[in-house]
Amino acid sequence: MAVSPPACPRRLLPLSLGLFQGTLLLFFTLFVTYDEPSVQAEDASVVANQLYSIFPLFQDIQVMLVVGLGLLLTFLPRYGLSVLTHNFLLLNFSTQWALVLQGLFHHFQHGQVHLDLRNLLTAEFAAVTVLISVGAVLGRTSPCQLLVVAACEVPVYLASEWAIVSRLGVLDVGGTITIHVFSCYFGLGVSKALFGAVHWPVHPKETPTPHSDLMSLVGTLILWVFWPSFVAILCQPGDAQQRAILNTLLAMSASAVTTVVASSLLERDGKLSPSHLQNGSLAGGVAIGAVANMAMPPVAALTLGSLSAVVCVLGFKFLTPFLARKLLLQDQCSIHNLHGLPGILGAAASAVAILVASKDTSGSQVSPTGGNAREAAWGRWGDSGAGGQALCQVAGLAVAIGGSLVTGLLTGAALRLPCLARPPEQLCLDDSLYFKMMDQGGSRGPGSTTEEGVLALKE
Amino acid sequence: MAVSPPACPRRLLPLSLGLFQGTLLLFFTLFVTYDEPSVQAEDASVVANQLYSIFPLFQDIQVMLVVGLGLLLTFLPRYGLSVLTHNFLLLNFSTQWALVLQGLFHHFQHGQVHLDLRNLLTAEFAAVTVLISVGAVLGRTSPCQLLVVAACEVPVYLASEWAIVSRLGVLDVGGTITIHVFSCYFGLGVSKALFGAVHWPVHPKETPTPHSDLMSLVGTLILWVFWPSFVAILCQPGDAQQRAILNTLLAMSASAVTTVVASSLLERDGKLSPSHLQNGSLAGGVAIGAVANMAMPPVAALTLGSLSAVVCVLGFKFLTPFLARKLLLQDQCSIHNLHGLPGILGAAASAVAILVASKDTSGSQVSPTGGNAREAAWGRWGDSGAGGQALCQVAGLAVAIGGSLVTGLLTGAALRLPCLARPPEQLCLDDSLYFKMMDQGGSRGPGSTTEEGVLALKE
Amino acid sequence: MAVSPPACPRRLLPLSLGLFQGTLLLFFTLFVTYDEPSVQAEDASVVANQLYSIFPLFQDIQVMLVVGLGLLLTFLPRYGLSVLTHNFLLLNFSTQWALVLQGLFHHFQHGQVHLDLRNLLTAEFAAVTVLISVGAVLGRTSPCQLLVVAACEVPVYLASEWAIVSRLGVLDVGGTITIHVFSCYFGLGVSKALFGAVHWPVHPKETPTPHSDLMSLVGTLILWVFWPSFVAILCQPGDAQQRAILNTLLAMSASAVTTVVASSLLERDGKLSPSHLQNGSLAGGVAIGAVANMAMPPVAALTLGSLSAVVCVLGFKFLTPFLARKLLLQDQCSIHNLHGLPGILGAAASAVAILVASKDTSGSQVSPTGGNAREAAWGRWGDSGAGGQALCQVAGLAVAIGGSLVTGLLTGAALRLPCLARPPEQLCLDDSLYFKMMDQGGSRGPGSTTEEGVLALKE
Repeated sequence: MAVSPPACPRRLLPLSLGLFQGTLLLFFTLFVTYDEPSVQAEDASVVANQLYSIFPLFQDIQVMLVVGLGLLLTFLPRYGLSVLTHNFLLLNFSTQWALVLQGLFHHFQHGQVHLDLRNLLTAEFAAVTVLISVGAVLGRTSPCQLLVVAACEVPVYLASEWAIVSRLGVLDVGGTITIHVFSCYFGLGVSKALFGAVHWPVHPKETPTPHSDLMSLVGTLILWVFWPSFVAILCQPGDAQQRAILNTLLAMSASAVTTVVASSLLERDGKLSPSHLQNGSLAGGVAIGAVANMAMPPVAALTLGSLSAVVCVLGFKFLTPFLARKLLLQDQCSIHNLHGLPGILGAAASAVAILVASKDTSGSQVSPTGGNAREAAWGRWGDSGAGGQALCQVAGLAVAIGGSLVTGLLTGAALRLPCLARPPEQLCLDDSLYFKMMDQGGSRGPGSTTEEGVLALKE
Repeated sequence: MAVSPPACPRRLLPLSLGLFQGTLLLFFTLFVTYDEPSVQAEDASVVANQLYSIFPLFQDIQVMLVVGLGLLLTFLPRYGLSVLTHNFLLLNFSTQWALVLQGLFHHFQHGQVHLDLRNLLTAEFAAVTVLISVGAVLGRTSPCQLLVVAACEVPVYLASEWAIVSRLGVLDVGGTITIHVFSCYFGLGVSKALFGAVHWPVHPKETPTPHSDLMSLVGTLILWVFWPSFVAILCQPGDAQQRAILNTLLAMSASAVTTVVASSLLERDGKLSPSHLQNGSLAGGVAIGAVANMAMPPVAALTLGSLSAVVCVLGFKFLTPFLARKLLLQDQCSIHNLHGLPGILGAAASAVAILVASKDTSGSQVSPTGGNAREAAWGRWGDSGAGGQALCQVAGLAVAIGGSLVTGLLTGAALRLPCLARPPEQLCLDDSLYFKMMDQGGSRGPGSTTEEGVLALKE
Repeated sequence: MAVSPPACPRRLLPLSLGLFQGTLLLFFTLFVTYDEPSVQAEDASVVANQLYSIFPLFQDIQVMLVVGLGLLLTFLPRYGLSVLTHNFLLLNFSTQWALVLQGLFHHFQHGQVHLDLRNLLTAEFAAVTVLISVGAVLGRTSPCQLLVVAACEVPVYLASEWAIVSRLGVLDVGGTITIHVFSCYFGLGVSKALFGAVHWPVHPKETPTPHSDLMSLVGTLILWVFWPSFVAILCQPGDAQQRAILNTLLAMSASAVTTVVASSLLERDGKLSPSHLQNGSLAGGVAIGAVANMAMPPVAALTLGSLSAVVCVLGFKFLTPFLARKLLLQDQCSIHNLHGLPGILGAAASAVAILVASKDTSGSQVSPTGGNAREAAWGRWGDSGAGGQALCQVAGLAVAIGGSLVTGLLTGAALRLPCLARPPEQLCLDDSLYFKMMDQGGSRGPGSTTEEGVLALKE
C-alpha cells in the first residue's frame, strides 16, 4: 500500500554525492596543502594565539549552524529527523563545494592553496546562504533537489560576495546584505519557480505541536546566544570586534523584548504567536550585521534591534498572507520575515549610519580599522566620501536582491527536471519518506486506522 | 466555551513593555556611549586580549541562563513554551532595567556612562536574581506579574549587593549570598504574600511526564557544565580564577554523586527522584560561590559539594512538606532547596574557611589578589582581622535574608493589585493561555472529550 | 502487582557510592593540594594565559560528555532519564576514581599531588572509556553493575595507557587506540561474559521512536561540533594543535557526507537509517585521533574520514548481525561500529602515515613538536626509524585489543555475582525501574490495559 517514490531519484542522491566526494578528494590531492609549520618558537606562539582568538568563536558558529538552526527548523512535528539531517548534510556538502570553488579561484591566481581555519570559515559562510534559502521550500523538496540548490547557490554567492564587497566596497561585516538578503531572495526565487502557481492547502503535518514549537524555540535560543560570535568573527581584533559584540548583544536584547510587544499587540486576546517569537527574537541579529562594527552610539543598536523585530512581526501578520495571496509565494520557514525584511532594514541603516557619522564628526570617528576583505572597503570611503559610501551600500543591496532573484528563479526552474521528481504531496513532510522507521504497530504507515492516525498526530 | 482572562491585563503587558522600551531608548540616547576607541596599536591589542579572556566565559553564562535555566523549568509538561519564553523575556527586560539603574547611579557620580561587556555582565547578574525568584510562583502568575517582580527586585538587588559587598565587605565572588540566598528569600516572600493562605491541590498539569523530566534534566546538565564559568568570571585573572574553576568543578562533581546517594537512600525501593537529581546536582555550585577563590585545600570543595547536595535532598524530603503544611508556602520550582539551603551553607562555609585559614597560616595564604569590587573586600580583612571578616560574612547573610524577605513580601502584596489579575486556577500551567495554538482536532481545548484529554496529558 | 527487584542491590548502590565518597575525601585530605599561588605578577599572567588556552576546550569536552553523549544514548524511548543519569553518574564517579588512582601512583613517586586542570582532564579521559564501554550492555544492567565496570576499567585503562604511550611510545594524541579501541573491546568483553549465550528477542522498548531518534541525533550533532576540541586539547600549542583541529574538521565533514552515501546505497528504497547517521557521522573523529597532529596533506584527513564512515555503516549492515548470530554478542549501542572498527582503521592509518611521511621527506616534515606525554614519543622515532615507529603503532593496537578483551571478560564475569543481580528482562529498558515516577492514570505501570500500553509506547 505504501507508495514509494520513483526509484531513480533514490539512487541519484548517493551516486551524485559519492561522485562529488571523489572529485573533492582529487581536488585536495592536486591543489591543497596546509601552511608550512613555523620554524621559530616565536612564530609558534603567534600561531597559537591566533588560534585561541578565533577558535572559540568558530565553535560558537558551528553550534549555531548544526544544532541551533537544525532545531529551529524542527517546528514541523513529523519531519524533525529529516530537517536536522538535511541541514547537516547541506552544511557539509556546501562547505566542501565552496572550498573547491574558492580553491580553484585562488589556485589560478596564486598557485598552491593553503588551507586554514579562516578558509574553512568563509566556506562555511557560503554554506549558510544555502541553509537559509532552502527554508523557503522545506518539506516539499527531495534531498536531490536541495543538493542542486546548494550546487547552484554556492558559486553565485561567491561571485555576488566578491562583487558586493570587493568591487563595490560595501561595508557588511556581519553578512546582512551578502548573506541574509542574498539567500532570502535566492530562496524565494527558487520557491516561485519550483512551485509556480500551485497553492497547497495546509498540510495536516505542517501544523506545529506544542512540543515541536518548544524544540524550535530552543533552536532560536541557541542561535540568539551565539549570534554575536557570528557577527564579530571577521572583525578586526580590538575595538571594532568589541563594538560588534556589544552592538549585537544590544540589538538582540531589544529584538527579544520588542517581539513580545509586537506579537502581543497584533494577536487576538494578546496571546503570543510561537513563530513570531522564534523569528522576531533573531531579527536584530540579521539587521545589525552591516553596522555592527561602525562607531555609532549604543542607542542606535537598540533602535535597530527594536525596529527589525517590529518589521519581522508585521511581515508575518500582513506581508506573508499578502504574498501568498497575490504572488502565490510559498515560504515554509518565513525566511522573508527573518532574513529579507530585517536585512533590507539593516542595509538602509548602514547607509544612514555612514551619512550621520560623517556629519557628526567629519568621518574621523568612523575611521577604518580594518584588515580583512570585508573591512578593506573603509579605505575607499576616504576617496569617495560618505555620500558615495552610502550609495555603495544601497547599490550593494540592489545587486544582492537582483542577482539572487534571477539566479534563484533559474535554479528553481532547474529543480523541475523530471529526474529530480519532487515527493508526492500526500507523502510530504513526513520522516518516513526518507528514513527507515522501525515499525511500531503500524500506526505510522498510511494504512493505519483513523484512531491511530489521530493519536500519532498528537504525539 | 474557552474562558478568556480579562482583557485589561492582556493589553497591559505590551503597553507597559513598550513604554519601558521607549524609556530605555531615551536613557541610552542621553547618557550612554561606548569607550573611545584605542589610538595606539598596543592599546588595541590589550582590548583584544581582554575580550578573549572574558568573552568565552560570558557566552557560557548566556547559554546557562537562556538555554539551561529555561530547559530546567520545562518540567511542567504543558507549560514548556511559556516558561522558556517568560525566562527569556525576564532575562532581557531585567538586564535592560539593571543597565538603566546602574547607569543612572553611575551618571550622577561620574557623568557619562561607558558601556562595556563588564557592565552588561553585572546587569545580567541582577537579572539572574529575578529568574531564580520567579521560580517560586511559576505557572500561577501572569507575565505582567512577573514583570512587576522584575521591576521591584532589580533595584533592591542592586542596593543589597552594594550594601553587602561594598559596605560590609563580604567576600562572595560567585554570588552565593548576594545572588542565590537573596533571590531565594525574595521569591519566597513574593509567593507568601501573593498566595496567602490559599493551598492549591496538585494541578493535573503540574505532574512531570518522563519526557518533561528528561528535558528538565538536560537543562540541569547544561547548567552543571557551565557553572564554573559563572563562578569564575569576576575573579582576578591568574591563580584566583584558576582556583575558582577547580573548586567549582570539584564541588559539582561531589554534588552529583552525593545526590544519587542521598536520593536513593531516602526514596522507597532505592529509586531516584528526578527532581532531586535536577536540583541536587547543582547545589554544590550554589554553595561554593562564596569560597571558590579562597586558598583552601581541594578537599574543602569536595566536602562542601557533598554537604550541599545532602542538604538539598533533605530539604526536598522534609523541609518542603513541612513549610507547605505549616506556613502554606508555595515553592513551585523548589528554589529553597536549590538556592536557599545550599546558599546558607555556603555562607557559613565562607566564615569557617576564613577562620581556619587565618589559624593555619596567619592569613598569609588567603592573601588578597583582588581588583574588582567583589574582591576589594580582601583589603579590609587586613584591618579587621579574620574574626571580623568571618562576622562580616554572617552579617552579609543576615542582610541578604532579611532585606529580601521584607521587600519580597511587599512585592508580593503589590502583585495582588486587581489590574494584574492572576490567571484562573483551571487555566493555569497551560501554554494555551499565553500562546496562539494551532488547532489540532480540538484535543487541547477545555471542551475536548475525556479520552482526548487523557491522551493529551500523556503526551 | 509491580514486581520490585530484590532489595539488596537497591541499598548496595548508595552504600557503596557513599563509602567511595568517604574514601575520596580521606585521600584528598591526606595527599592533594593545589599549586602554590604565583608570587610575581608575571607568573600570574602566565597562569591566566594557560587557563584561557585550555579552558574553552575543556568546556567543549564537558558538553560532549555530559550533554552530547547523554543525548546520543536516549534513542531508547522509555529509558532516557536512566541513560542520562547513568552517564552523568559514571562520568563523575570514574573521574574521581581516576583522580585517586593517578594521585596514588604519583604520590608514591613524587610525594604531594598538585591538582590542576590537566590532571582533571586526564582523569576525565579515563572516564570516557567507561562511558563508551557500558554502551555495549546499556539497558539490561543495574547501576551497581555499571559502577563495578567503572571500578575495574579505570585502573586497567590507566595501566594500558601507560604501557601503550609511555612504554611502547605509540603516537595517539586523540586517543584513537588508547581510548576508543580499548574501551570498545573492554565493553564487548563485558557483554559477552555477562550475557553469555543468552539471546534476547528484541524488547518492545528497544525500538526507537521518531522522537527518541531525534533526541539522539541532536546528541550526535553536539558531539560532532565539539569533537575537534577533544582531539586537539592535549596537542602542543601552535602548529600541531592547529593541524589537529583542521584535520578533525575535515575528517568529520567527510564522514557526515559519506555516511549519507553509504547508508542510502545499502538501505532498501534508498532511505537512510537513523542509527547509521547517529554513528557514522562521528566515525571520522574516532579514526583521525591517532594521526591528527601529524604533518600529512589535508586529503589524507578527508580520505580517512570517508573510509571510516564506510566501515562504520558496513559494520552496521553486515558485521553486527554476523556477530550476533555467530558469537551471540550483544552490543546495544553498536560501540563496535563507532569505536572499534574506525579505531582500528585509524591505528592502521597512523602506521601508514608514518611510513609514507618518512619516504616522502625523510621524516623531516613529521618532526616532533611535542612536549606532553602523548607526544614525547616523537623523540623515540628518531632512534628507531619510521619502520620501528609504524610497528609500535601496530603493537599498541594489539596491546589495546588484547588487554581490554581479557580484562573485559573478567569484569563481565564479576558482574554475574548474585548480589549485583541484573534487572529482570521484562522490567528492563524502562525508567520506572530506577526512577520514582509520578502516577499518570496508571498507564505506565505493568498493570495497565493494553490500549493504554499501546498509547504509552507511542509517546
